[in-house]
Amino acid sequence: MADYAIGVDLGGTNLRAAAISRDGKMLGKVAGAIPVNGGRDAVISDMVRSVETLRDGLSGQNLAGVGVGMPGFIMLESGVVSVAPNLPGFENFAVRDAIEKRLGTTVILENDANSAALGEKWMGAGRGTGDLVLLTLGTGIGGGIIVNGRVLHGVLGMAGELGHITVSPNGYPCGCGNNGCVEKYASATAVSAMAQLLNLGQGLSSEEVFHLAKGGNERARLIFDTVGEALGILLGNLINTFNFPLYLLGGGLTAAWELFEPAMKKELTHRSFIYRNNPPRVERAALGGDAGLYGAARLPLENN
Amino acid sequence: MADYAIGVDLGGTNLRAAAISRDGKMLGKVAGAIPVNGGRDAVISDMVRSVETLRDGLSGQNLAGVGVGMPGFIMLESGVVSVAPNLPGFENFAVRDAIEKRLGTTVILENDANSAALGEKWMGAGRGTGDLVLLTLGTGIGGGIIVNGRVLHGVLGMAGELGHITVSPNGYPCGCGNNGCVEKYASATAVSAMAQLLNLGQGLSSEEVFHLAKGGNERARLIFDTVGEALGILLGNLINTFNFPLYLLGGGLTAAWELFEPAMKKELTHRSFIYRNNPPRVERAALGGDAGLYGAARLPLENN
Repeated sequence: MADYAIGVDLGGTNLRAAAISRDGKMLGKVAGAIPVNGGRDAVISDMVRSVETLRDGLSGQNLAGVGVGMPGFIMLESGVVSVAPNLPGFENFAVRDAIEKRLGTTVILENDANSAALGEKWMGAGRGTGDLVLLTLGTGIGGGIIVNGRVLHGVLGMAGELGHITVSPNGYPCGCGNNGCVEKYASATAVSAMAQLLNLGQGLSSEEVFHLAKGGNERARLIFDTVGEALGILLGNLINTFNFPLYLLGGGLTAAWELFEPAMKKELTHRSFIYRNNPPRVERAALGGDAGLYGAARLPLENN
Repeated sequence: MADYAIGVDLGGTNLRAAAISRDGKMLGKVAGAIPVNGGRDAVISDMVRSVETLRDGLSGQNLAGVGVGMPGFIMLESGVVSVAPNLPGFENFAVRDAIEKRLGTTVILENDANSAALGEKWMGAGRGTGDLVLLTLGTGIGGGIIVNGRVLHGVLGMAGELGHITVSPNGYPCGCGNNGCVEKYASATAVSAMAQLLNLGQGLSSEEVFHLAKGGNERARLIFDTVGEALGILLGNLINTFNFPLYLLGGGLTAAWELFEPAMKKELTHRSFIYRNNPPRVERAALGGDAGLYGAARLPLENN
């Protein structure tokens, strides 16, 4: 039986990796910027080096394998990333085989939002629960769905595209081709866009808008009401669909939880009779940016 | 190993039961009106008699048990129906134990929409597929979700309340307390209500509106465009959530499939990039009113 696994979180700008024991203790962690200008091979070499650094520090212990969480659509069986908007050169490339060959250990790929959901289930706010949904409110909105303790993948690994649920049928256009996707109303990007529409300032970050709202700026508060309403419609739909016991919200925008929670809960109460009569837990995720590391490391441990 | 099982479909007005072999052959079927005025005990006696009639006709064969599909929220572990709007006297009553005691065989309860989804998966349009969603377009809209070949229940057996997904946030009020539930736009009841709003006639059935539309009535055709648009939003959301290979539509309103399909597919194309790039099957269910009988019979066979 393996002692530990290594989880990698490959973002658009950063690469982080952690060695995590079978019982969920973090044994070591490395992080750094991605060598974006070096191209795909430089990124892969960087990832391999990070894993080797962690493995060398734990010699004598038995490695189950490496899990890699990354943005994009992962073809699980082939280990190919079919769409990877933030990682040039990775599209339709057999990432898994390339890393596996260099490391000589099992490598499992997973979408980053799914990894985070699995991490929260394993060692975060979802401990003791087999079924949950995690929404990650960042640049966009990512979704991960856990059913019976496992990630729900769907036929092509595209399940959980919850940022593209329609909450306003004639609403803002989305890059996906739809109008009124929830991520046009409740992501960090949406908060900045709304601040611009309300003349709060050009190029304000969601964090700056958050501080304006906390300081009592009425227009900034309206923005977080809008965030809450959109999340309430989304969560109402999810609760009526899944009847799960737990729905978690993670990502940078949850720093503003206290600002959007009232509108979110009010909307949820309106939208879902299941929520009104048998309210599930709707809470902040617990592991922050480490959720994806825990989840990625969990993957090779699941069957090992 | 058991040879067959009996599936019961307990509706608000009719009770039907069928004996179905392990390999999915219908061996016998009984149907009749429910003795509504006799109260709960009369309904239960009727159900027991139907099962006994079928069992007596198959003496010598080994019965796995009885599955009962019925409207309402079923508490699976206790075998109690917590909400049963169309069956007076059944609410919070231990239906399963009452029937089990009289029949002396295993009884499993299931929500009727879930039974129908399981039936389609077993012997209908979902054969060979482990994951599907069935929408039943009737008086309301019922939903059943099959994951890895099994019904998705959620914590309280309330998963799949897909008729109450919001497709128009400020839309028509629904009895569930929400505004703009899909069943206010795409059920038989909604078609009749829209016909009244368009002055097509008082008290027209959805079938009558269908015939008007087929005959070229422009306002009647508009109604089915509305049906299709609402279904397209719902299905787009479901496809982005599940990435399943198959979505089935059943129920009386699917007689108008050719009328609402164009608007539904157009809306779906707009709403879901997964549908545009990797279209799953979106089709009519195959078993009609028998889907629930097959699914209910399947329940005791699953573990027997």
